[in-house]
Amino acid sequence: MLRVALAMVPEVRQLLTEDPAQLSDLLDEIHDEDLADLIGLLDDAEAAKVLMALRAEEAAPIFERLDGETQEALVEQMGVESIAPIVSEMAADDRTDLIEALPDQVSGTLLSTLEKVDPEAAAEVEELAKWPEDSAGGLMTTDYVSVGIHLTVADVIERIRAVGEDAETIYYVYIVSDRGHLIGVVSLRDLLLASPSEKLADVMTENVFAVSPETDQEEVARTMAKYDFNALPVLSADRKLLGVITVDDVMDVLTEEQSEDMQRLGAVGPIEDSYFKTSFWTFIQKRAPWLAVLFVGEFMTGEVLRRFEHELEVVATLAYYVPLLISTGGNSGSQSSSLIIRGLAVGDVRVGDWASVLVRELGQAVVLGLILSVIGMLRVWLWGDGTGFVLTIGATLMAIVLMGCTVGAMLPLLLRRLGLDPATSSTPFIASLVDVLGILLYFTIARLFLADLLAQAGAGG
Amino acid sequence: MLRVALAMVPEVRQLLTEDPAQLSDLLDEIHDEDLADLIGLLDDAEAAKVLMALRAEEAAPIFERLDGETQEALVEQMGVESIAPIVSEMAADDRTDLIEALPDQVSGTLLSTLEKVDPEAAAEVEELAKWPEDSAGGLMTTDYVSVGIHLTVADVIERIRAVGEDAETIYYVYIVSDRGHLIGVVSLRDLLLASPSEKLADVMTENVFAVSPETDQEEVARTMAKYDFNALPVLSADRKLLGVITVDDVMDVLTEEQSEDMQRLGAVGPIEDSYFKTSFWTFIQKRAPWLAVLFVGEFMTGEVLRRFEHELEVVATLAYYVPLLISTGGNSGSQSSSLIIRGLAVGDVRVGDWASVLVRELGQAVVLGLILSVIGMLRVWLWGDGTGFVLTIGATLMAIVLMGCTVGAMLPLLLRRLGLDPATSSTPFIASLVDVLGILLYFTIARLFLADLLAQAGAGG
Repeated sequence: MLRVALAMVPEVRQLLTEDPAQLSDLLDEIHDEDLADLIGLLDDAEAAKVLMALRAEEAAPIFERLDGETQEALVEQMGVESIAPIVSEMAADDRTDLIEALPDQVSGTLLSTLEKVDPEAAAEVEELAKWPEDSAGGLMTTDYVSVGIHLTVADVIERIRAVGEDAETIYYVYIVSDRGHLIGVVSLRDLLLASPSEKLADVMTENVFAVSPETDQEEVARTMAKYDFNALPVLSADRKLLGVITVDDVMDVLTEEQSEDMQRLGAVGPIEDSYFKTSFWTFIQKRAPWLAVLFVGEFMTGEVLRRFEHELEVVATLAYYVPLLISTGGNSGSQSSSLIIRGLAVGDVRVGDWASVLVRELGQAVVLGLILSVIGMLRVWLWGDGTGFVLTIGATLMAIVLMGCTVGAMLPLLLRRLGLDPATSSTPFIASLVDVLGILLYFTIARLFLADLLAQAGAGG
Repeated sequence: MLRVALAMVPEVRQLLTEDPAQLSDLLDEIHDEDLADLIGLLDDAEAAKVLMALRAEEAAPIFERLDGETQEALVEQMGVESIAPIVSEMAADDRTDLIEALPDQVSGTLLSTLEKVDPEAAAEVEELAKWPEDSAGGLMTTDYVSVGIHLTVADVIERIRAVGEDAETIYYVYIVSDRGHLIGVVSLRDLLLASPSEKLADVMTENVFAVSPETDQEEVARTMAKYDFNALPVLSADRKLLGVITVDDVMDVLTEEQSEDMQRLGAVGPIEDSYFKTSFWTFIQKRAPWLAVLFVGEFMTGEVLRRFEHELEVVATLAYYVPLLISTGGNSGSQSSSLIIRGLAVGDVRVGDWASVLVRELGQAVVLGLILSVIGMLRVWLWGDGTGFVLTIGATLMAIVLMGCTVGAMLPLLLRRLGLDPATSSTPFIASLVDVLGILLYFTIARLFLADLLAQAGAGG
């Protein structure tokens, strides 16, 4: 998609030096998203010039779509006085996100300038800033259409015509009481399909699905995706209408939360920007702690192996199978954990289901363990390590797959039960635990099936 | 979300036996999604009775939302004659998906019954069935509003009123020529905000973003999320309007593709249904092949360790560090691969960027490797394994993290270059390759730093 923006850079640079007044016409036909990409490709001084050449209401939707870092750089480059009119034209939710992301001193100056330019916009920011960024309150906008109940369909359509320009969505109209309580909702579709003289009360839906401002943004996204909602109202505890969440913001949340989950599974802290926009030190900060925690967790494997010093000294062959066995435990564990973590995320699996999850996973583990045992025993036999090893590896594989599936499936549920995020916390725990338990299982079983060999070799050594 | 449905089951069961005619009134105020959950909780015979008690246009939106397995069971339970009127009321895209999913014989009978009941609906199915399920063509609907260009704004709104009942979205109106070529698009919002007497040609946008029917559904979803489109037209090569993709279908695609990516990273084949709806043997089929491939790949570690038989026999301490070292290689590799796979999926990273990716990953690997080396050397020193081991482990950690990051970052790009799906294929390759290379690095470095110890012990043994 960057193609559109890349292709425009030379022409825009030329106009900037020769005739900036023409920029507005050139950019008029281009989608704001492509213009945001274009701004990202220019250096800060050029980008500032482009935004200044546009009217504030043209610049605002482009500015909204820039990533946080570019926005901050441009606020600094253009100065609070020049940026304030653009900020006042931004959607209320994006405006709040911007002001919250700026360093305290800059955001203070910007907010007080905004209070002079557009007091209503400043008030909206103060209202929306109350809620955490990743909650329904942080996602909602106050730019919606609301009406009283004593109107006809024609009145409401007239009202949409009057205020629709500034609203983020006009496809739903919210009916509120004099005190701001939500009474009902009506879609523009239903309004258009109804007779103009019909009463609003007769076409609206009273049973409105709503969320509280504290609801987690991922839950909001999943609810809207499940029910195919284009907009979702946010209500206070006493059912006052606080704002509306629109589907476009939710699609970004879905993508963002999914990126985070993937990164967590890969043991990387959540990274907000795209790969090439993320700085070197951000990557180190997101990777080093996880890598170090996993590393220190794995020290345990060294501790445990030292407990089998005697066995490893007398039968070196035992060491050859360690990586094969512990990786198998890890793989079966990560299969189970990825299924359960995803199930928890989309709401298919709940903590209370742990018993039925355990039964299912153990059932699968028996079959999977049998398959791997057969393949593994055949391989050991071909290596010629003798019957003792054939039996040891076969039994260990069975035990390790059972253990891997149990740990992989139960640990995410346990972590969720303890109020922790299963995607974040499962990986390091499962990795170390499964490796350590795998080694313990292996040497315990080896002592059993290889008792003769160990005794002989010990005596001979 | 299942709570709503669960709470209704007893009441619905009671009405089914006592007074099925009242069902329609009871279910009228419930969201179709919750009703679909309810149907899923009933047995097939009960579910069939509920659907029969409703009018076809009430039953269709519920039936649309059922998963494939339940739909098929209900077609069998209710019979083609009873289901056809419901199928005729379904959205064209869902109707097509259903008929494509049914066994050939049933779908043939259903389609010929549909041709009698509603020939237009049958024709739409034949049109949409041309395209693969996971392409734009498989996602689009033919239930959209299109008009000719010689109309006024008021005419178009009148037209929406007339045909809007059956359209999947009325928020965009497509302007087409007599031959079906797309000329432009206008949003209902722009129509409402314009003066009723204005000409359509003056309010429409000619520069319409569109996709071809072959476009992959994931690309469609990302495009719509990026540009905040609520609907996206699908055009043939000669720009004829074939259909429209709406945002609600795309949100499902985002979730579905994400689940698949997560499952692939966890080495599980893509699973379509939710955890508890997926059968035992489906899980085995999705898990066993991957587990077996990974297992056989790990045989290599055994082969490589056997090459260092002498070293392992004379210095058993060497074996204690194997799990620690190879897991560190695996962790740094999976950090890099999860970043790159996600970057490829969302379009941030392209195959052509491999050189700059390599530079970034190597730079990060140096810092990460240094951090782990320092921690690791301290631990070895505390274990009291001697200077030779302190140096060996320090150097090996550095080498292994460099190798892990390189393999983890480059392999997904190479696989994509070869036309393979990086999410599917990376995991097993990276796991085995990093383990094997890690062991090779470890023993090669050990031979260097532990030469004296190995010679002494060898002579002494």
